[in-house]
Amino acid sequence: MHSGNTRLVRSGKLVIVAGINGVGKTTVLSTMLKLLPPDLKVNVFNYGDVMLEIAKRNGWVGGRDDLRRLPLSKQLLLQEEAAEKLFDQARQGNVVVDTHALITTKNGFLPGLPKWVIETLQPDVIVLVEALPEEILKRRLNDTMRVRDDQSTVEEIKLFLELNRSAAISSAVFVGASVLIVRNVEGDATQAASKIVKLFTPDNA
Amino acid sequence: MHSGNTRLVRSGKLVIVAGINGVGKTTVLSTMLKLLPPDLKVNVFNYGDVMLEIAKRNGWVGGRDDLRRLPLSKQLLLQEEAAEKLFDQARQGNVVVDTHALITTKNGFLPGLPKWVIETLQPDVIVLVEALPEEILKRRLNDTMRVRDDQSTVEEIKLFLELNRSAAISSAVFVGASVLIVRNVEGDATQAASKIVKLFTPDNA
Amino acid sequence: MHSGNTRLVRSGKLVIVAGINGVGKTTVLSTMLKLLPPDLKVNVFNYGDVMLEIAKRNGWVGGRDDLRRLPLSKQLLLQEEAAEKLFDQARQGNVVVDTHALITTKNGFLPGLPKWVIETLQPDVIVLVEALPEEILKRRLNDTMRVRDDQSTVEEIKLFLELNRSAAISSAVFVGASVLIVRNVEGDATQAASKIVKLFTPDNA
Repeated sequence: MHSGNTRLVRSGKLVIVAGINGVGKTTVLSTMLKLLPPDLKVNVFNYGDVMLEIAKRNGWVGGRDDLRRLPLSKQLLLQEEAAEKLFDQARQGNVVVDTHALITTKNGFLPGLPKWVIETLQPDVIVLVEALPEEILKRRLNDTMRVRDDQSTVEEIKLFLELNRSAAISSAVFVGASVLIVRNVEGDATQAASKIVKLFTPDNA
Repeated sequence: MHSGNTRLVRSGKLVIVAGINGVGKTTVLSTMLKLLPPDLKVNVFNYGDVMLEIAKRNGWVGGRDDLRRLPLSKQLLLQEEAAEKLFDQARQGNVVVDTHALITTKNGFLPGLPKWVIETLQPDVIVLVEALPEEILKRRLNDTMRVRDDQSTVEEIKLFLELNRSAAISSAVFVGASVLIVRNVEGDATQAASKIVKLFTPDNA
Repeated sequence: MHSGNTRLVRSGKLVIVAGINGVGKTTVLSTMLKLLPPDLKVNVFNYGDVMLEIAKRNGWVGGRDDLRRLPLSKQLLLQEEAAEKLFDQARQGNVVVDTHALITTKNGFLPGLPKWVIETLQPDVIVLVEALPEEILKRRLNDTMRVRDDQSTVEEIKLFLELNRSAAISSAVFVGASVLIVRNVEGDATQAASKIVKLFTPDNA
């Protein structure tokens, strides 16, 4: 039977919101929560936070930085358990999963939604939040809070945006999810946020 | 065992012909049928038509517009049964499946050849019919017959062409199909059509 | 369970090095071998050579040209057995697999790392060696040794580079491999080569 069927047991929708660092995804998601009409409930989960929580409960890590130092076997286990937990959340209601379609590592671009994650999550939609490469670069340079060892030229960001789309499409083919590209316009996150809200409104079912 | 093996039981070839609205796919396919040498038989099936036929036989729909309104579970079932029917057609002879690699929906770009469809169809080749974005836009604007709520600028069409290629490659990796990009030159559909005919000629086996 | 787990039984790393004809992949790989520190062992295997060796042992072919003329069933079998042999090599030590993410054929672009190959190889990293389209074209024109019926304009090469990236990402999603794009700078293969060496150094684990 087709792999799309486990999605049918859910009462809520599961929407993945991905986007490379500097597109303003965090602002878009917090704006989205403010825009929700009173009768519409959507829970936002950060994929990395869910992994961290499971790792802490297992006594594997003290903090987020320890996650990367875990052996690959445990990282894969966490990745899969987090996906299962998020799928379960969507049995009861609408869920946004805040994550990445592609992650910059020192060994290259790592898929954030590999086969075993995407097939467990069974998302309805993968939203890619995008912004102009110049704006992304500016946001990254202004961001003094996080250490960012990734792309530092407009050309590198363009390449990453391109590969990110490719990764989202590849993951979508596994489960028949749609891929919605949402442009975050500088200074007006409500435009992008309202497009995500629309995905959860009943007349859009 | 590798997933490519069910292809071996077929006597005919199965070629998917995909392309976004406005590339002139319908004209290319009807031209292809006229160009076939007398000893070469190729049956063309429209994927949506095959789904509709099955849905009607099941008493699920009256007409094509009802297809979209079916619950997801039934749409997935139709999608899979249509793929099985088309694979069976290729047991006896050459088949062209007229469909889409990517479909524009209000929730974003939906893969037309998701895992369960491509793995059932096991195509030999996925042909992408393309045209210049400007020509596609012109054809879309002239087309008063169909309601088209999709891309309306050259930039949007360029993006869709790019994602369409990515979707075709992603689907091809599941089954080891080749991806043939065929340019439909304005006013001369025979060029594109004859490239599709060649895929079925024996010396090309 | 996730498909990534068979990777865990290996003591060595498996790195796929892919790149279209004319990027200078052969030079990069021989330079890499020279750059290896004395205590680091990496075995380079050409995927086609491994397939040929198995085919010869089975008595199926005399030389490389016969490979393409084998029935599809035997080609698929060879492709899979080669993947299994290479995975076994990585149980004992570091392996580079020299192959293609996408292959030009008369029926279009064929994935070099389809599902059954990539899921058997379980690579840690897929390296894409790239070069400027103009340099690739020049190398291809100067190469009088090989018959090359493939792309002959800068535009065609750009398209192939683009699709090649898409194919690498698609294959990577099946196994959670990272994709490292390495630019081969004209006249200085050591830059690209040293990036591949780094993938095998312990502090990069």
